[in-house]
Amino acid sequence: MSSPSRYLVSAPGKVILFGEHAVVYGKTAIAGSLDGLRTCMLFEKRDDGFLELNLPKLGLQHPLLWPISALPYSKVASVSNGNDSSQGFSFNEELLEALRPIVLEGNAGNKNNQEINELQQVAASVFLYLYTNLEDKQTSWCGTTVHVTSNLPVGAGLGSSAAYSVCLATGLLLVLGHIAIPDYDEKVREFNISDSSSPTNLINRWAFQAEKVIHGTPSGIDNAVATYGGAVSFAKGVMENVIGFQTLRFLLTNTKTPRNTRTLVANYPHIVEPILEAIEGISASFKEIINSGVSQKELNQRIEELIDLNHNLVNSLGVGHPSIDKVREITAQYSLHSKLTGAGGGGCVLTLLRDDVTNDDIMRIKLALTSIGFECFETKIGGHGISVLDASAISKQEFLSSENIQFSGWKHFN
Amino acid sequence: MSSPSRYLVSAPGKVILFGEHAVVYGKTAIAGSLDGLRTCMLFEKRDDGFLELNLPKLGLQHPLLWPISALPYSKVASVSNGNDSSQGFSFNEELLEALRPIVLEGNAGNKNNQEINELQQVAASVFLYLYTNLEDKQTSWCGTTVHVTSNLPVGAGLGSSAAYSVCLATGLLLVLGHIAIPDYDEKVREFNISDSSSPTNLINRWAFQAEKVIHGTPSGIDNAVATYGGAVSFAKGVMENVIGFQTLRFLLTNTKTPRNTRTLVANYPHIVEPILEAIEGISASFKEIINSGVSQKELNQRIEELIDLNHNLVNSLGVGHPSIDKVREITAQYSLHSKLTGAGGGGCVLTLLRDDVTNDDIMRIKLALTSIGFECFETKIGGHGISVLDASAISKQEFLSSENIQFSGWKHFN
Repeated sequence: MSSPSRYLVSAPGKVILFGEHAVVYGKTAIAGSLDGLRTCMLFEKRDDGFLELNLPKLGLQHPLLWPISALPYSKVASVSNGNDSSQGFSFNEELLEALRPIVLEGNAGNKNNQEINELQQVAASVFLYLYTNLEDKQTSWCGTTVHVTSNLPVGAGLGSSAAYSVCLATGLLLVLGHIAIPDYDEKVREFNISDSSSPTNLINRWAFQAEKVIHGTPSGIDNAVATYGGAVSFAKGVMENVIGFQTLRFLLTNTKTPRNTRTLVANYPHIVEPILEAIEGISASFKEIINSGVSQKELNQRIEELIDLNHNLVNSLGVGHPSIDKVREITAQYSLHSKLTGAGGGGCVLTLLRDDVTNDDIMRIKLALTSIGFECFETKIGGHGISVLDASAISKQEFLSSENIQFSGWKHFN
Repeated sequence: MSSPSRYLVSAPGKVILFGEHAVVYGKTAIAGSLDGLRTCMLFEKRDDGFLELNLPKLGLQHPLLWPISALPYSKVASVSNGNDSSQGFSFNEELLEALRPIVLEGNAGNKNNQEINELQQVAASVFLYLYTNLEDKQTSWCGTTVHVTSNLPVGAGLGSSAAYSVCLATGLLLVLGHIAIPDYDEKVREFNISDSSSPTNLINRWAFQAEKVIHGTPSGIDNAVATYGGAVSFAKGVMENVIGFQTLRFLLTNTKTPRNTRTLVANYPHIVEPILEAIEGISASFKEIINSGVSQKELNQRIEELIDLNHNLVNSLGVGHPSIDKVREITAQYSLHSKLTGAGGGGCVLTLLRDDVTNDDIMRIKLALTSIGFECFETKIGGHGISVLDASAISKQEFLSSENIQFSGWKHFN
């Protein structure tokens, strides 16, 4: 059976449910995947020996184009087939350096003389970095085109770069024959990060390399959430999935106001250290509650208590913001509980949408929030991580014209 | 030299500066005396063998009157001269029981048939309990009249019962010749609670007995603050004065709204325990800052940080209240920082008045707060504890007509 000529891949964004800030000091945080906010990519094989990258959502109106022959293969010591059983791949700084001038050449053919900005250059670097590593010269085709689309806000702390990295790693691993489309469709599977034979772990590890291209020293939690989906517990570099976690409905509000990240950490060690411990206690309580078998109603109530605890504790560290209080105030009028999410930059707020909240109320809340300049997303936390689809039957036009990608038949790795 | 025939005594109220709630779980709290909110008593010797107690501020329009001969002296095993060197006196439950019917007899002579309520009965019990214990039958006079006045709100968590107890203990110890008016006037002295020869410690120990009559199991911090003044650090029954603490100017707002005292303690031990530790850290930081030799400006800024920390941490325990948020909101408009004070019932809020706050701003804040039904007191925390005065030259009318007792020449115990 020949492999498909076109693949669709999709990876979710992430939010920190509990433990932001504390995680920086070695405490446990819980992150979850954003079911409705995803990056999606269409991979098309081509036969002219060129790589093409389309980034319209990053403001690039024309494709970037490179001949495969220009890639610095010599910098890749031994071509990895990706099945290296070692936990961490060592990052190839020399390769990244060699790619810098090549990245810019991808823009040479454009007729508008539009320069590519730093964000676009980084996106292109990730693409070429992964391609150079994963091309093993054994495949019979030559070239690929990638179209990228996303409904994830960039720079809002919602893991857009990780979703991009995971999609690229997955698409290239598929196109270059390292992995194949799996059979699994519905079930969200628990992951064992130490299982080296798992294609999901392979994707996660290459996505982590991609994140290094983007961030230098990423924590690894964003790519883990985008890859595995569900909820991930994370402390001091050690990750595990939150067993038993299904999905929770949230309103995600992007206040678009930079967060105050000045904390009181330095001044008051014997106050702040226990506050960080208390925040870690929230993550632990969340994992306990998820598996305690309580009713949905009680589960929601307990999570609302943890939301308030987390909000007040992070506030006590001095990293609150009036715009977050504003969201809390508006949602509290409908008896809903909100907390900031993420460690800085984005200023996003999560509001738990209990089952008993009416659609009318949600509409009113969204209206109140958008009327003061905030952006709202009704979303679920949890659900599938990386998802793939044989896209042979999906036209490029169909993909590009689909704002909310609603294709069916997604498959999920074990 | 004959002893005075009239004594004036005065004891301050108290507020919790830091650590309310946490102190219930064995953590350190800091309490301070309320310089301008005091209970004052005039003691007059009489020669007709009667005890008279006047409690107009407790709503009692006529005096309570008892013949000394009615007191159950037989219940006092050995008449204590108060100089017992043992730390704690054992409480005389049997005496208290015997006093119950006698208390009511004090009301028998009144012509209005006004019944005495529970609060008035307790106040009378304290008086008779102390008198029976302290009367050693060696003194040449027979009888005393006590006039009580106070500008301390009752039941607002401001230590009004302790100020009452300390005044009564002091006045009776003076009148019955156990102690004499001291020479010290200005300096606030540090106390050594284990020094059994100190008259201040004697007062404190009898006041603690009085507090037992009122509260059953008092913590001892209220009477300590009313006795010693300044600021007192307190944990698990162990008290010490906060060395180096002078006075701090505060606005004290009584919201008159009962506080929500339901905490999350039971549900989340591994979140709440570190929160309590963090609150204890605030008390420790306060003591450090007080003695760090920083400028007044930095001192104020650090205390404001601790105020915010304490507020947010106590809020995270779920014991906040909208009326407290309201005070914070109003004072924040003038860049001032507020926190609740006290563990429940009173709903009082403290706002630090920095030196750079103008009187105009304070007036505006007070106006804003009183216009929504709150009661404001501009006060200092710290300053003298129990103060005494030879009142021979002060007439009873002068005392009773003085709303804010502004006599001079107060003396203070070592």
